Amino acid sequence: MAAKIIDGKKIAGDLLLKLKEEIAQRQIDGFRAPCLAVLLIGDNPASEVYVRNKKIACEKIGIKSISIDLKSDVSEDEVLALVKKLNDDETVDGILVQSPLPKHVDEKLVIEAISPNKDVDGFHPLNIGLLAIKRPKLRSCTPFGVIKMLKTLDVDLTGMNATVVGASNNVGRPMALELLLENCTVTICNSRTKDLEKKVSQADLVVVAAGIKNLVRGEWIKEGAIVIDIGINRVEGKLVGDVEFSIAKEKASFISPVPGGVGPMTVATLMENTLLAQKLLS
Amino acid sequence: MAAKIIDGKKIAGDLLLKLKEEIAQRQIDGFRAPCLAVLLIGDNPASEVYVRNKKIACEKIGIKSISIDLKSDVSEDEVLALVKKLNDDETVDGILVQSPLPKHVDEKLVIEAISPNKDVDGFHPLNIGLLAIKRPKLRSCTPFGVIKMLKTLDVDLTGMNATVVGASNNVGRPMALELLLENCTVTICNSRTKDLEKKVSQADLVVVAAGIKNLVRGEWIKEGAIVIDIGINRVEGKLVGDVEFSIAKEKASFISPVPGGVGPMTVATLMENTLLAQKLLS
Repeated sequence: MAAKIIDGKKIAGDLLLKLKEEIAQRQIDGFRAPCLAVLLIGDNPASEVYVRNKKIACEKIGIKSISIDLKSDVSEDEVLALVKKLNDDETVDGILVQSPLPKHVDEKLVIEAISPNKDVDGFHPLNIGLLAIKRPKLRSCTPFGVIKMLKTLDVDLTGMNATVVGASNNVGRPMALELLLENCTVTICNSRTKDLEKKVSQADLVVVAAGIKNLVRGEWIKEGAIVIDIGINRVEGKLVGDVEFSIAKEKASFISPVPGGVGPMTVATLMENTLLAQKLLS
Repeated sequence: MAAKIIDGKKIAGDLLLKLKEEIAQRQIDGFRAPCLAVLLIGDNPASEVYVRNKKIACEKIGIKSISIDLKSDVSEDEVLALVKKLNDDETVDGILVQSPLPKHVDEKLVIEAISPNKDVDGFHPLNIGLLAIKRPKLRSCTPFGVIKMLKTLDVDLTGMNATVVGASNNVGRPMALELLLENCTVTICNSRTKDLEKKVSQADLVVVAAGIKNLVRGEWIKEGAIVIDIGINRVEGKLVGDVEFSIAKEKASFISPVPGGVGPMTVATLMENTLLAQKLLS
């Protein structure tokens, strides 16, 4: 069986178009454009690319973006004070602090300082907790994007055996909570998992977010399973995922590629969260 | 193999004794006794028993308990106002609202109204979220009690295949998050799970919180597995768990009975949370 390749770029594009229309309609109805504040600290080239992509998406669909670029020696107190100011600013709907932060700035503190209703990354523990108790509000962008992607496939997730490979705070854990919300039977694997092959080969749905290229071998995939690859690894200048794509795609029913899979979804759900944040404020 | 029966009553008793000593020492050091406010609404006989047991535990170990008994026709606004008053009261460390609440009072609203640092039940979404991102503070009592119980067994949980049967907000979900924190590979089953027997039979550790007597058959248990039964079901006036105990105990290495297993642990961790809440306030 040769898998259908899930076109994340197209799905994300469709979502962005829908958001653009809604934002335009809301402006006709008297609302201002949603506004996303983007904090970038230091000069990490990868971060700069991510931030640029997010700003381009904003521009495309009518979200106003504010750039706040801080030097890498900014103090933690200054960052926290700035976040507080943005929390209090009624013209700002969403606040995004691009990670990684310099070592002397505690990322946990900064994330928790963001008002949960402006936490468009969905990283605040209150938002993670709301997802965990089946009352999601602002949801972590990447897992939320995966769910939006899966919803386009016209398959029923209820009761599916889903295996999540990776248990990070920002991706693996909220991903597992998202799949629980869809009534999957969820298995979460981490670096201490003893028989990863077995966990993967029993799954109807495999979501991989480990950050290790080719960690999931193609032959492990169950015939007809859905495979979502969140990994992004740079190999000889090329981006590859965590799944051995060339073999896996011969066994899966659907598979998301890297690049062009989950990546564009993450940006699109960030945009959706920004609009939602505006609705939460008003 | 005949399992060792995990004596929850003894483990809880040891924990209570340790807490009692710490509280006494803290009073010598100038702190007042920790104080737990217990709200009981209406006259549900089971709730009255639970509340009484919690108050007895308080008394035993030197925690002051305040009883607030409200009539079943109290308005939601009155309950919320009372919670707010208790949040602001510096002589109150922990607030417990005994569920179930009357239908006209929204339990979610009431739980979220409790200050997270006084949420000794560990049900507030912020506390669930902190657990999810590996920074537990006030932890849901029953799952936390299970972890405390497991820690007495002198087994290494890291890498264990753990299956949680039940995905409720108050027990199954935080239980899975607790086991993730212990670096288990966690599988969470719910009512839509397709092959429960397989999920259970592959587990080195099975935690059952479904509320269905004998849901987990004894023969499903893997030889040498650890079995924790959180279920409490009333059958002909007797309490039984969710696991077919008589058979399961012949296969497990350790098994928790009902009654006398997890139940006493839940009360003990509530006491620990109340002391912790006091430490958070001061």
